[in-house]
Amino acid sequence: MYIVPFFYLPLQSDRLNSLNLFYTMKKSALQIARAAYQPKLPVALTGSVTVVEGEPTQSVADQEEIKKLFPNTYGLPEIRFEKNPNPVPGKPINAGVILSGGQAPGGHNVICGLFDGLKKINKDSKLYGFLMGPGGLVDHKYIELTSDIIDEYRNTGGFDIIGSGRTKLEKKEQFDKGLEILKKLNISALVIIGGDDSNTNAAVLAEYYKNIGAGVQVIGCPKTIDGDLKNEVVEASFGFDTATKVYSELIGNIQRDCFSAKKYWHFIKLMGRSASHIALECALQTQPNVCIISEEVEAKNMTLDDVVNYIADIVAARAAKGENFGTVLIPEGLIEFIPAMKNLIAELNDLLAKSPEFATLAPAAQREFVLSHLSAENAKVFASLPEGVARQLTLDRDPHGNVQVSLIETEKLLSEMVNRRLEQMRGEGKYNGKFSPLHHFFGYEGRCAAPSNFDADYCYALGFNAACLINAGVTGYLSSLRNLTKPSVQWLAGGIPITMMFNMERRHGEMKPVIQKALVRLDGTPFRRFAAKRDEWAMATSYVFPGPIQYFGPAEVCDQPTMTLHYEHLDK
Amino acid sequence: MYIVPFFYLPLQSDRLNSLNLFYTMKKSALQIARAAYQPKLPVALTGSVTVVEGEPTQSVADQEEIKKLFPNTYGLPEIRFEKNPNPVPGKPINAGVILSGGQAPGGHNVICGLFDGLKKINKDSKLYGFLMGPGGLVDHKYIELTSDIIDEYRNTGGFDIIGSGRTKLEKKEQFDKGLEILKKLNISALVIIGGDDSNTNAAVLAEYYKNIGAGVQVIGCPKTIDGDLKNEVVEASFGFDTATKVYSELIGNIQRDCFSAKKYWHFIKLMGRSASHIALECALQTQPNVCIISEEVEAKNMTLDDVVNYIADIVAARAAKGENFGTVLIPEGLIEFIPAMKNLIAELNDLLAKSPEFATLAPAAQREFVLSHLSAENAKVFASLPEGVARQLTLDRDPHGNVQVSLIETEKLLSEMVNRRLEQMRGEGKYNGKFSPLHHFFGYEGRCAAPSNFDADYCYALGFNAACLINAGVTGYLSSLRNLTKPSVQWLAGGIPITMMFNMERRHGEMKPVIQKALVRLDGTPFRRFAAKRDEWAMATSYVFPGPIQYFGPAEVCDQPTMTLHYEHLDK
Repeated sequence: MYIVPFFYLPLQSDRLNSLNLFYTMKKSALQIARAAYQPKLPVALTGSVTVVEGEPTQSVADQEEIKKLFPNTYGLPEIRFEKNPNPVPGKPINAGVILSGGQAPGGHNVICGLFDGLKKINKDSKLYGFLMGPGGLVDHKYIELTSDIIDEYRNTGGFDIIGSGRTKLEKKEQFDKGLEILKKLNISALVIIGGDDSNTNAAVLAEYYKNIGAGVQVIGCPKTIDGDLKNEVVEASFGFDTATKVYSELIGNIQRDCFSAKKYWHFIKLMGRSASHIALECALQTQPNVCIISEEVEAKNMTLDDVVNYIADIVAARAAKGENFGTVLIPEGLIEFIPAMKNLIAELNDLLAKSPEFATLAPAAQREFVLSHLSAENAKVFASLPEGVARQLTLDRDPHGNVQVSLIETEKLLSEMVNRRLEQMRGEGKYNGKFSPLHHFFGYEGRCAAPSNFDADYCYALGFNAACLINAGVTGYLSSLRNLTKPSVQWLAGGIPITMMFNMERRHGEMKPVIQKALVRLDGTPFRRFAAKRDEWAMATSYVFPGPIQYFGPAEVCDQPTMTLHYEHLDK
Repeated sequence: MYIVPFFYLPLQSDRLNSLNLFYTMKKSALQIARAAYQPKLPVALTGSVTVVEGEPTQSVADQEEIKKLFPNTYGLPEIRFEKNPNPVPGKPINAGVILSGGQAPGGHNVICGLFDGLKKINKDSKLYGFLMGPGGLVDHKYIELTSDIIDEYRNTGGFDIIGSGRTKLEKKEQFDKGLEILKKLNISALVIIGGDDSNTNAAVLAEYYKNIGAGVQVIGCPKTIDGDLKNEVVEASFGFDTATKVYSELIGNIQRDCFSAKKYWHFIKLMGRSASHIALECALQTQPNVCIISEEVEAKNMTLDDVVNYIADIVAARAAKGENFGTVLIPEGLIEFIPAMKNLIAELNDLLAKSPEFATLAPAAQREFVLSHLSAENAKVFASLPEGVARQLTLDRDPHGNVQVSLIETEKLLSEMVNRRLEQMRGEGKYNGKFSPLHHFFGYEGRCAAPSNFDADYCYALGFNAACLINAGVTGYLSSLRNLTKPSVQWLAGGIPITMMFNMERRHGEMKPVIQKALVRLDGTPFRRFAAKRDEWAMATSYVFPGPIQYFGPAEVCDQPTMTLHYEHLDK
């Protein structure tokens, strides 16, 4: 039998619900058991809510410019919700929801929480899901999310309930096109679940709709496994908790294998885009022999050779003790943080963009082409790279023609260069070991895992809270929960004006108001704890084996937030 | 602080125990909670046991030859244990234990069960662990395993309690050297935990010790994640259950990602050596779009192009429905099952073994060297391979000079060739899609995972049962538990004469008595169930998302054996 996932069906919502055959997909035993989990809401959201307004806010930088760009949504107060024991009946709300960008565990629970929140306000509320990301709004592709559908997705991983996409909502024409369908469906509020860019665009959209009196509120929700959407007012993005736990499970398993076999060095690259939050969190959880933090590499202006020598020295020191094994964690964005590599990539991007003939050349000729066209300094760096990596730098570019960082096999680049360095050290009598590297890249394994209890609760509450923000009549706000190291019933619920997180940055040659991306702070406790321990972890074998995410066991196993969150709270 | 794992310390057992600092390694919350799990023994092993002897046995083939080679241990009866309600006091036993070969989840529990079984027979029994595999016996490296040590390893993954190794116990000198230390420690029984080769060697050792009247029994335990040590009398090797569950967790997560993003084809290679049991089990658990089974490829005499065309046709058919995404499972041994590739590899092994100068050549010259020395037919196959794969075939050889199958990136080889084929089909108007492949290899992620409830119970019972076999005075037996699809209390316990599983096979040019390796049977129910469903899975998106192993939840989540085991029981 051929099963038709519902969003391939003709996109008319009423018909869809009756035709939805997706549910016939076979469910695993865990999925069935996990469906019964009831996320625990913060106390503030368990009755009707009272809205408490704080002081007017300011953007984190460039206040005047941003105020000018957001005349209607700048300077709004933070909002805190308090429990109102007296039920306050609300009017029915028609809302829309969009999943934007890369998958993160818990996205379905945001939608379930939003649905439940809207229905609690008024049982006649409706929720529409726009399909395959922001493009669904522009192209008018949607379904109505009914309780039948919602119940199939509680506490599940993935974004497949409505799909996601990377279309950027940036242009007036898109906003206007979107408004047509919002009006048609009588939708008065749109919830955008996304990362820093998507929430930046949510704020622009909120301002635009407010400005033209469209009567549509826009609310954002902080999503990304990368952990780079956080700041003074946002403690964590959802998905980071689950994804880092999946990666830490795997790293722990590999470390136990490594420690049993005692003959391999495992080079493990971890997803996370520019920021090294994922690598750092996994290092704190698993205590590997080496973890590179891109932000530190940049701050110390390290060369690729510096990084290679750092690893090689540890390999050699362990070999001197007879330990020819170990683990190295590598953030996927590393290459871009090495100044010499950054220069090389920038020149390559330019060179190849203006050389369409390049694609037609044979591999050897491509190499010659690149070497003969690059500046002397960059040509030298390019020539020093292992062949396979050099080739990758010139292939597989994204639609903008840029190097796709996640496709560069940094883990192999580093191990090859470490191997070379070790052979040199052997010649100098400084190394007398055996170096057998193995390589791993973890990313897709964690983005759609079923959410941990933390993410299941956090996401459900983010969605439920978004419904409360809609009911409060605000726009341009991010759904916000704080106090996240505490049990979820104690979390503080409310909303943050998105413009509050803005600063001006150069993007594609233009200054734009954007949410500041959070990189690893070298003065923050998570990094400092790591830095204080890494020399010990390098030489001793101090591996920790976290094991897989548990959903049913004791609280100390199932309900712990990330160490990053824990340590960051110590900073507050 | 520098933590010294105990087996680097001077190898004298009494001193070791007081110096053992390994326990200071930080434990994860799951490890601590899981330590309390008490594996459930079969009823037969819960009291004293009564030994019930069956009929004399025969080897599965070549009976006369094998009988001649094993005059003392051939033809022994199968043994079944029954519960004896009356306690029968036993004498103290000094036993030794060895972990042999690659890691498999549950190895520690075999040792814990063995320890508890010996202590139950007599509290003065002692257990010695030989370090880093069979080499520890030959080199007299060991520790005494006391209850302090044992308690640190209950229900944990890894083989790090005493380490493992790949030294083969095959020669008289090794046997004699081993006997010295066995005598010195007054050890009367040796338990060897290993795969088909290690248990073959266990039988040879048992025969030798019996023949010379050494007074040392030898008992084997069936270990391997690969699942290829099973037959009419052995239902499963330990570790297969946990490892396939870890891989299925990851495949399920990737499938949910794949189904959410709808833009990638994931090529996932799975460990498992020659046999495709792991790939097949994971396919049954996760229902991918494609799973290649090496044994079928060989049986159908398929070429590499046949395999590539099979995948490309599915990619194209899905693309015709607008579905440019999917998953492909590939067993790591595939290459060796493709006749043309097998011939190429065999000639390469020969060629490179007798060409030491090859290693000194530059990469381009190496390629020329190979092409000019191979037979015309094999040179043609070699030339057709993507560059990177061709290089891998000539590099990284094992100590015997053979290609290391697990290092061949079959997943990339196939996706590159599928891509080529699709472009050809596009030219013929038969394909109009977008093909973006991503690659994964899972193996080390699962070998040292903490054992599932099934493996925790199975391993503990295997070890406990081995103690009972020792107490029964037998040698050359494999610890055996059957009825494994039932709850563990209903398992049947006993012993199988290892020679019963023997046949004669050519190994390194000589006919040897060995345990038959179990490949996937194309007439078995696991394969037939898969084959009946795969066309549906190819076109429909029927993914199942098993999620991570759960240790604390409901039985239907935590206590299910593999689907392979389940279906194989239907065959019985």
